[in-house]
Amino acid sequence: MEKWINSLQTKTPQEGFELAITLAQKGIQYTQPSEKIRKKLRPKYSEDAENLIASSQVIAIHFETVAAANNYWYKRG
Amino acid sequence: MEKWINSLQTKTPQEGFELAITLAQKGIQYTQPSEKIRKKLRPKYSEDAENLIASSQVIAIHFETVAAANNYWYKRG
Amino acid sequence: MEKWINSLQTKTPQEGFELAITLAQKGIQYTQPSEKIRKKLRPKYSEDAENLIASSQVIAIHFETVAAANNYWYKRG
Amino acid sequence: MEKWINSLQTKTPQEGFELAITLAQKGIQYTQPSEKIRKKLRPKYSEDAENLIASSQVIAIHFETVAAANNYWYKRG
Amino acid sequence: MEKWINSLQTKTPQEGFELAITLAQKGIQYTQPSEKIRKKLRPKYSEDAENLIASSQVIAIHFETVAAANNYWYKRG
Amino acid sequence: MEKWINSLQTKTPQEGFELAITLAQKGIQYTQPSEKIRKKLRPKYSEDAENLIASSQVIAIHFETVAAANNYWYKRG
Repeated sequence: MEKWINSLQTKTPQEGFELAITLAQKGIQYTQPSEKIRKKLRPKYSEDAENLIASSQVIAIHFETVAAANNYWYKRG
Repeated sequence: MEKWINSLQTKTPQEGFELAITLAQKGIQYTQPSEKIRKKLRPKYSEDAENLIASSQVIAIHFETVAAANNYWYKRG
Repeated sequence: MEKWINSLQTKTPQEGFELAITLAQKGIQYTQPSEKIRKKLRPKYSEDAENLIASSQVIAIHFETVAAANNYWYKRG
Repeated sequence: MEKWINSLQTKTPQEGFELAITLAQKGIQYTQPSEKIRKKLRPKYSEDAENLIASSQVIAIHFETVAAANNYWYKRG
Repeated sequence: MEKWINSLQTKTPQEGFELAITLAQKGIQYTQPSEKIRKKLRPKYSEDAENLIASSQVIAIHFETVAAANNYWYKRG
Repeated sequence: MEKWINSLQTKTPQEGFELAITLAQKGIQYTQPSEKIRKKLRPKYSEDAENLIASSQVIAIHFETVAAANNYWYKRG
């Protein structure tokens, strides 16, 4: 697969959260490389409450990693 | 998406818990951007025991991150 | 919501475990604020093996956070 | 509830694993205090593959906490 | 139960992964001590996609613990 | 089983992510050693939304471990 990530460091928590979303999506893309099949399954993710919560959980786990990688974007006052 | 988070640091554990809830909701909003569809699914989240527990779990994972980001709001005695 | 938590620090592991239970319940209360609906769903939590295990899992995640916040109540011998 | 835990520190990894099992069971007991109902549900836990794996997962999360609390029972060589 | 674990320290990441598998299996054995029942359930674990993924998840959580216990088998270059 | 892993250290986050995928797959291979059965189950993983999200979650947990093992590939500026 072509290069899709350079670093876990981001400038802001929001960029970190968006990176967590990318990581969650990549987990799915590696497991199901066919874009056609993924497109067909898309409504199952995004229009089903249980799957939406499960997706949010995968994002939460990746965000835990990304936040730690950025030392929680901590700024001394 | 417009800016919705500036920092993981909060003044109190309760504000940190509420930030964890926001993070859980944002994971869902990014995955399903249509407010109309999310509104339609709302009762599935909040009136189903299994989905409520699953939502509480996503909050728990984010709270783990937020609490670490705040050094557990530790106050030396 | 009114103030319901002051600190993640507790005197004993057992109090910490009970705080983890409170945190798990709060995740559900914030998601479903209606006490009436929650009461209706109560038997689904507590009389269904799958939901009981899932509830125990949310408690486990929060206990991980609370235990870290208390440095595992470590006492040097 | 009466006192059921004094410390997260154990002498050996095996005792730590068994403490993790106790913690997982306590999460269920607090959520469903009736021993009668829990006994009725027991076969659902222990004779259903999905629930057994889920129970093993709750134990895994608690073991992560207990192992950290014991600094992984690390012995310098 | 007889002694089945002495230490979380292993020589290699692969041995650590195999220890994580043992820990996941032990969680199931403690919950369902009857070998006869476990044998009957075996095909449900290993021939069902959902249960296989769930088993792999329990292994992942234990591996997180074992890897930390071994300081990630880190070797300075 | 023959040797399949030497180290958790990788040069880049992307290689680390791909190692996390390998670890998730190995968890399944150890639980179900028969390649024939795994092949039969493959479509269940990769063409079912719920299982795809669950697979992505296992990858997320392993990535958390691998990222920590690499100190998040942190480069001082």
